[in-house]
Amino acid sequence: MDRLEVTLKELRGFVGEREWEQFHDPKNLAMAISSEAGELLAEYRWVNNAEADDYSRQPEPRERIAAEVADVGIALLLFCDRIGLDLIKAIGEKMARNRENYPLEQSRGRWDRPI
Amino acid sequence: MDRLEVTLKELRGFVGEREWEQFHDPKNLAMAISSEAGELLAEYRWVNNAEADDYSRQPEPRERIAAEVADVGIALLLFCDRIGLDLIKAIGEKMARNRENYPLEQSRGRWDRPI
Amino acid sequence: MDRLEVTLKELRGFVGEREWEQFHDPKNLAMAISSEAGELLAEYRWVNNAEADDYSRQPEPRERIAAEVADVGIALLLFCDRIGLDLIKAIGEKMARNRENYPLEQSRGRWDRPI
Amino acid sequence: MDRLEVTLKELRGFVGEREWEQFHDPKNLAMAISSEAGELLAEYRWVNNAEADDYSRQPEPRERIAAEVADVGIALLLFCDRIGLDLIKAIGEKMARNRENYPLEQSRGRWDRPI
Repeated sequence: MDRLEVTLKELRGFVGEREWEQFHDPKNLAMAISSEAGELLAEYRWVNNAEADDYSRQPEPRERIAAEVADVGIALLLFCDRIGLDLIKAIGEKMARNRENYPLEQSRGRWDRPI
Repeated sequence: MDRLEVTLKELRGFVGEREWEQFHDPKNLAMAISSEAGELLAEYRWVNNAEADDYSRQPEPRERIAAEVADVGIALLLFCDRIGLDLIKAIGEKMARNRENYPLEQSRGRWDRPI
Repeated sequence: MDRLEVTLKELRGFVGEREWEQFHDPKNLAMAISSEAGELLAEYRWVNNAEADDYSRQPEPRERIAAEVADVGIALLLFCDRIGLDLIKAIGEKMARNRENYPLEQSRGRWDRPI
Repeated sequence: MDRLEVTLKELRGFVGEREWEQFHDPKNLAMAISSEAGELLAEYRWVNNAEADDYSRQPEPRERIAAEVADVGIALLLFCDRIGLDLIKAIGEKMARNRENYPLEQSRGRWDRPI
């Protein structure tokens, strides 16, 4: 069992013991992902692009950032588990499409979608 | 190398080949996580809680949902990689705190934080 | 001067006195809108659709909801002011397009875009 | 009747004619606010802070930005209307609290909450 599977099993146990499946339908979990992502966003709201890497290394904000990232990850994994979706497989399929949509030569050094 | 590591390596390669590290500071990636989470949210916006599980199984929305989930996951993994954070470890640490904040007996069947 | 103009003037004064224009570029304010919207979202995360109206009337959550709504509104107005956009006019133009995209007969009682 | 009231009346009519009140409970509208805010966010995702003002003036992105801002505004106004909240009044009350939380002398030129 790889690390992601171990984590998923732990999350399932945590939720199951608390009888929270009743709250965890996909709609509510999509809201949880988004609200947690909003808390991560809040960390960087007033931080300039040029300072964002450095800010992420300072102990105090880093601790909060790690907790927010974890919250997004937890909600995302619970969502995937609820709808029976393999996150790693979904990412693999999306990356295949990304390779088509962002061909190497036309995409190098530019962020807008070239085709 | 577990599946998550393989995925991370693929993402790094994709971004590196396109010279996108210049756009991928933590501030911008936090925005990417949040805007992708917003697209996933949009899928469930008008779907009632009672229908959300069923909706997630219908082939057409499911395909879009899987793509949005993948986009959130990709942005989240790129963010973690940029700031040198191990997502699985961060989740483990947050879950330890969640166990303290949501003790089994006081949390069973209720969603508000009991302590 | 209508009520919205009075509010805008107050917001401008509050920000100007604190010399916050330096933080309030459109990118940062777009992040503020989104993170405040995420906090409003968090209020309803575990509330079922069927209970959402009632929940919004209970004094304790209502006070928090009103504060979150205000935060979204403040960030939205500051954003519009920064880029010189008239919110009411922008809404009017979008509604004109919405009338085209959601014709009365095809849209009645259904939430998906009919055309 | 001021401009905001006229807009609210138009929104109510648009929604009522289409019999969309059934979808517009506060939970769903909070999701709409957040997903529209995410689309606005997406516009600035890869734009550097230093270029954000200029970017907001370029005709092509500006048109999209105006439409996204309008969508956030529409969802916010519909939310307020649904729960019977006066947005302008809520902002006024929040600003009173903001004046307490961010006293002039301690807040000048800094973005973190001073007290």
